[in-house]
Amino acid sequence: MVVSISLENSKNIEYNIVIDNLPSLKFDTKVAIITNDTIAPLHLDFLLSKIEANNVSVVTIKDGEQYKNLETIEYILDELFKFKLDRKSIIIALGGGVIGDMTGFTASLYQRGIDFVQIPTTLLSQVDASVGGKTGVNNKYGKNLVGAFYQPIAVYIDPKFLETLPTREFSAGVAEIIKMAVMFDKDYFKYMQENSLDNKENLKMTIKKSVELKANVVNQDEKEAGIRAVLNYGHTFAHVIENETNYIKYLHGEAVAIGIIMANELSYELGLLNRDEFNEIKELLVRYNLPVNYKIENIDSFYEHFFLDKKSFNNKIKFILADGIGSHIIKNDIDEDIIKKVLKRFG
Amino acid sequence: MVVSISLENSKNIEYNIVIDNLPSLKFDTKVAIITNDTIAPLHLDFLLSKIEANNVSVVTIKDGEQYKNLETIEYILDELFKFKLDRKSIIIALGGGVIGDMTGFTASLYQRGIDFVQIPTTLLSQVDASVGGKTGVNNKYGKNLVGAFYQPIAVYIDPKFLETLPTREFSAGVAEIIKMAVMFDKDYFKYMQENSLDNKENLKMTIKKSVELKANVVNQDEKEAGIRAVLNYGHTFAHVIENETNYIKYLHGEAVAIGIIMANELSYELGLLNRDEFNEIKELLVRYNLPVNYKIENIDSFYEHFFLDKKSFNNKIKFILADGIGSHIIKNDIDEDIIKKVLKRFG
Repeated sequence: MVVSISLENSKNIEYNIVIDNLPSLKFDTKVAIITNDTIAPLHLDFLLSKIEANNVSVVTIKDGEQYKNLETIEYILDELFKFKLDRKSIIIALGGGVIGDMTGFTASLYQRGIDFVQIPTTLLSQVDASVGGKTGVNNKYGKNLVGAFYQPIAVYIDPKFLETLPTREFSAGVAEIIKMAVMFDKDYFKYMQENSLDNKENLKMTIKKSVELKANVVNQDEKEAGIRAVLNYGHTFAHVIENETNYIKYLHGEAVAIGIIMANELSYELGLLNRDEFNEIKELLVRYNLPVNYKIENIDSFYEHFFLDKKSFNNKIKFILADGIGSHIIKNDIDEDIIKKVLKRFG
Repeated sequence: MVVSISLENSKNIEYNIVIDNLPSLKFDTKVAIITNDTIAPLHLDFLLSKIEANNVSVVTIKDGEQYKNLETIEYILDELFKFKLDRKSIIIALGGGVIGDMTGFTASLYQRGIDFVQIPTTLLSQVDASVGGKTGVNNKYGKNLVGAFYQPIAVYIDPKFLETLPTREFSAGVAEIIKMAVMFDKDYFKYMQENSLDNKENLKMTIKKSVELKANVVNQDEKEAGIRAVLNYGHTFAHVIENETNYIKYLHGEAVAIGIIMANELSYELGLLNRDEFNEIKELLVRYNLPVNYKIENIDSFYEHFFLDKKSFNNKIKFILADGIGSHIIKNDIDEDIIKKVLKRFG
């Protein structure tokens, strides 16, 4: 299956997202693979067996969101300069969202930009992170605050990689699938309620559906001037949670699950979701063992943190909310009192 | 006078380059000015008197090419996060090429990209660096090896800033003007031979002409897939010279002057320039007190250095050469022997 990206505002950016067994990859250039020390022992040999190129080098970094920073980017850049990659060389990301985001960012920076390919190995990166060209790193002020919009030349999504994925990480990916369904497609949400992802065909169809929804959004709005912001449902809260817990306690998708619950409490407060809908979403998250509770230690500091989010302008926070299941609404005029009242339910 | 940039391959990127007295600038957002400790005492108050905005903050860094690195970028980013700039905020570069390159790069990275304005204060940045969206920093492997293509939303070129510019830096800017003339326009070269830039009207016309030539090239080829490489005439050599002398001994334009001489020796060797033409270009460089001599300590190491240049692919170096005065030729098949023979004239 192939889904295409063709960005509305750029004449030259078009690429395919292939959802299938990884094909043989032939390059008439130097290639560098960026991966981490968890994925390398599992899948690096397999990838190497698929690549034909002038020269292949590998950069292996430590696994973990806590290494997603500028220091690691400098390290990767240094390695690439040692390999003497040139402007026509290709970088390949082999790993989850962290590897994909950092590889894309590095590719955008190396000699002001060289081509890169995404080979996502986690469910989260297969259904979300690898598609759309958001790249970057975290800093002490928050998540993904430094980066670039930079599109890959191709994305290869092979569900086989998921066979080695720990259950907890699989679930974290499901959180982003539920996000897409709640925001855009009631039937898809229903499908998720009624079908199990243990079935391989269901899983493949689900990946395809999520990628299609995502590609559709990105094609309309690469730079997040409008509709793309909807993909941040749950993320405004999740970013604060991840920051407060130093990116260690929760996987990104787990923080998103909690963020979805928080956003839904706000929707409920504003009359946009009823308790039944709230509970249906919660039950689906719980079915995949995703966390739905979080203790906010300090309401004011949690609230202040919102203003460093990329979705806050002129002291207004932009909340992406469910307006019933399957549709979304963007609100940037919610009173501080109401927000804090909702946050207190987690206090 | 206004010159327009309208990039051929991007639907949404168009901006004006205003060559005139700096107008009043009104922003409905937060603004941050990035400048250095040489320019701030001279021109910051003047700029502040021209700006109306919700809030104006200033980041002042040390003056000098040796600070053009990722460490300084991180420092600037940190300051901007402290100011809580949001995605609609504007960054203004007040300074020469180093400030412009680093400000544009920072703008490209902050929350994956916010708008920036160029206010170049040196002749070099007015005629060259501020136009075209090349941003970035140096690293131990070479010049501008890490960066982004990122266009400003406007460029304001006020020749008045040049009144405080040291003569040596003025001359460094003239090197880039001579580069443009030799590559693209024999009449312009003749104009430079026959007219003095001491005259303010001549100077303004010369800035406009250079900006027009540059904008014309950038409009055709933003990402340097073709014609834009011609702007690197002299630079392939200059980058090695700057690297060998730790970016301290020569101003960029001075290294370019030497690089032009080296490229011209290669042109002469290949029968593309005769000795008269070679000498005419040299005389114009010398008239502005630009250096035209350089002692290469180690020919092999100088030669090896070429391969880290962004213009080298698959072990081929791309040389931009004068093919007579006023036209250019790109060569990537020159024998190592010939190149080294020419380099030996500087040994």
